Amino acid sequence: MSPSLNHCRALDTSDPLRALRDHFVLPDGVIYLDGNSLGVLPKTAAARVADVITREWGQDLIRSWNSAGWFHLPQRLGDKIAPLVGAAPGEVVVTDSTSVNLYKVLSAALAIAAEDAPGKKTVVSERSNFPTDLYIAEGLCRERGYTLLLVEPDGILPALIGDAAVLMLTHVNYRTGAQHDMAPLTAAAHAAGCLAVWDLAHSAGAVPVDLNRAQADFAVGCGYKYLNGGPGAPAFVWVNTRHAERFQQPLSGWWGHAAPFEFTPGYRPASGITRYLCGTQPILSLAALECGLEVFGAAEALGGMAALRTKSLALTDLFIELVEERCAGHGLGLVTPRDHAQRGSQVCLSRNEGAYAIVQALIKRGVIGDFRAGDPSTGSGQAPSTGSGRTGSPDILRFGFTPLYIGFEDVWHAVEHLKQVLETGEWQRPEFKQKHAVT
Amino acid sequence: MSPSLNHCRALDTSDPLRALRDHFVLPDGVIYLDGNSLGVLPKTAAARVADVITREWGQDLIRSWNSAGWFHLPQRLGDKIAPLVGAAPGEVVVTDSTSVNLYKVLSAALAIAAEDAPGKKTVVSERSNFPTDLYIAEGLCRERGYTLLLVEPDGILPALIGDAAVLMLTHVNYRTGAQHDMAPLTAAAHAAGCLAVWDLAHSAGAVPVDLNRAQADFAVGCGYKYLNGGPGAPAFVWVNTRHAERFQQPLSGWWGHAAPFEFTPGYRPASGITRYLCGTQPILSLAALECGLEVFGAAEALGGMAALRTKSLALTDLFIELVEERCAGHGLGLVTPRDHAQRGSQVCLSRNEGAYAIVQALIKRGVIGDFRAGDPSTGSGQAPSTGSGRTGSPDILRFGFTPLYIGFEDVWHAVEHLKQVLETGEWQRPEFKQKHAVT
Repeated sequence: MSPSLNHCRALDTSDPLRALRDHFVLPDGVIYLDGNSLGVLPKTAAARVADVITREWGQDLIRSWNSAGWFHLPQRLGDKIAPLVGAAPGEVVVTDSTSVNLYKVLSAALAIAAEDAPGKKTVVSERSNFPTDLYIAEGLCRERGYTLLLVEPDGILPALIGDAAVLMLTHVNYRTGAQHDMAPLTAAAHAAGCLAVWDLAHSAGAVPVDLNRAQADFAVGCGYKYLNGGPGAPAFVWVNTRHAERFQQPLSGWWGHAAPFEFTPGYRPASGITRYLCGTQPILSLAALECGLEVFGAAEALGGMAALRTKSLALTDLFIELVEERCAGHGLGLVTPRDHAQRGSQVCLSRNEGAYAIVQALIKRGVIGDFRAGDPSTGSGQAPSTGSGRTGSPDILRFGFTPLYIGFEDVWHAVEHLKQVLETGEWQRPEFKQKHAVT
Repeated sequence: MSPSLNHCRALDTSDPLRALRDHFVLPDGVIYLDGNSLGVLPKTAAARVADVITREWGQDLIRSWNSAGWFHLPQRLGDKIAPLVGAAPGEVVVTDSTSVNLYKVLSAALAIAAEDAPGKKTVVSERSNFPTDLYIAEGLCRERGYTLLLVEPDGILPALIGDAAVLMLTHVNYRTGAQHDMAPLTAAAHAAGCLAVWDLAHSAGAVPVDLNRAQADFAVGCGYKYLNGGPGAPAFVWVNTRHAERFQQPLSGWWGHAAPFEFTPGYRPASGITRYLCGTQPILSLAALECGLEVFGAAEALGGMAALRTKSLALTDLFIELVEERCAGHGLGLVTPRDHAQRGSQVCLSRNEGAYAIVQALIKRGVIGDFRAGDPSTGSGQAPSTGSGRTGSPDILRFGFTPLYIGFEDVWHAVEHLKQVLETGEWQRPEFKQKHAVT
């Protein structure tokens, strides 16, 4: 028999991370399982940003570039992200968007490959990688004379043999929640004479990452998902110190200059990761992100990413168990791997029919997950890796479990709502069938 | 005899734009002449951003991408900037930083030039252009096999003859406040078979700009100066409709995709200016910028940019007149052109000695301008264009006059403080001699 509501409540009571939930605003009547898309609001953010607006901007004006430390926010926030991804202080900056940062690091990786392995002319990635990563790579490959080779997960290792110059992967897949094993894949890339670029959009703050231990080459990541930095919060970029000073990234703006206030006409890149900055950054959005990052400081005292990972796996295990028992017979398949080592912090369910309407019916009940259409990349290869047994690529119901603020009782209620939506046929109401322009 | 304080007060009383000042927070005891670097706080911004944080993010969470219109903020704000720069609705998007946007449009310009004029291999700019523009151009030129030719203002037209592919200029010079005449320079570029790229960082919201009438090719500009969008507010980008769909800019992220939510692996650029978007944008900073742009809506009813220009010139004329009469004999030179057609919305004074300390002494008195060191580009060619008669390139005291919120009485008091600082020798106090890391 599946765990009872009382059992789930007991799990919350004994959860050593339970106090972290109090750092966030959680709307009444909402079970928020979409923190993998936009994290919730840290309680400190409204007052912090208000202070930046009214005092730092409104009263101190231009002086705040010095007095409030605006100019060094990219480095200050980078140092707060560094321990979450296995980077050292001074190795990370927060700036621009994930897509722009990927352009910078992939440019650098290709420039290094052109020197170290000039015969290699292929960039390898996954067909089901987040599309913006593929778009950025597609453009750079065309410009630099490289081929972008897209493979299924089991095709990655074979693709490294031959003329692969760069392996570009997203650590946790946005659609399936499947997690790559960073260290051995990076080692395999290196053994094949290939650089490894990692996108940590669905990893940073969600699963343990150790970039330096894995000897990864480049990484980028997102501020507004598991880091709870607010809508469109700036992204981050990390470069292995062995590469950091070797190449000047193409977006050579003044914030990455060695002496930006000398206003000299020739570009001299700053040392280290600072050269990955470009233009002036949005201070209000950076201030909100800092509030999200500070919660990880509080989490550190309670066991940090290791403890968060333990809870994340307990939450997703519980969700899978409850769905499989309480929602059996309703055509749901499990897309996310059962194997802990291969699972991120989300669970994706597949259904051949009605996935969109089911998600809408859940949202109407206050259970916020999201919908992703059947894999648009090929119609093959992105089939559920476990569980469903179906062929082809059904639509997906996606549920993120942020261990900072999701509790075990939340999981129980979410599944109870899902059960009711399915059993009553509520999802078949006309109101849930119309797709919005943006989902 | 120079205008009296009472005369200046009478000018304020009869100023048809006087009411616009009430849209802004102006700190007590401060005369803010640095709006050309960071504009002041619109009164609506604190409440607007608080609502975005507490309601749109905190309560509505991911749903706000649709319900609050987050996804279309780049276009919505672009449409509010369009009338300020002579662009049509749908021709401008707000996104990323000025430097990143310059990279996009200069890439596009070079791609077009490569097709239309493959023999032309030079990008022409001004030696005293804002350095980040030169850094971006330097990198792109190296990558694409172009030469970046930097000339003095009187060398621009001669440089267009020959193999110039792109003319890249900042409309109003950040150091001197000198304004180029956009239409004839663009026409000269076109006559020479050359594209014209304009940086409007010190123009948008400060001086009338008519990109379409000038038939300019590409333009970028800044959100946090005269548009009062807040520290590091996102920038804007405009592309002439004749070029907009011709080229796919290199930062091909998902926000510029024709169907970003189809999540297909191949990049298909959106139509029009939307393809100049890349990644997810910082919503809090965009919300603040919208407050700054709304003031221009109120200004439109009072005569818009034409009325703002009239007042701007009256303010800078008054400042020049008062400085020349009341501060005579203190070694100040006038760097900014006297000719209205060549003047932006700032006035720069030169002094061979003590400029930094004088600016610091003024700031201590609440008169906030800023300091720029003697032209670092060459030591020649950026000498004062009028007035000082000195050779070489002295340091600069820079004062911006934003007609939305600066009054004529402010100008009178600013000059009175300058006079006192100079006459008393106050600027020679040791406290004003130490340079900060960031000015």
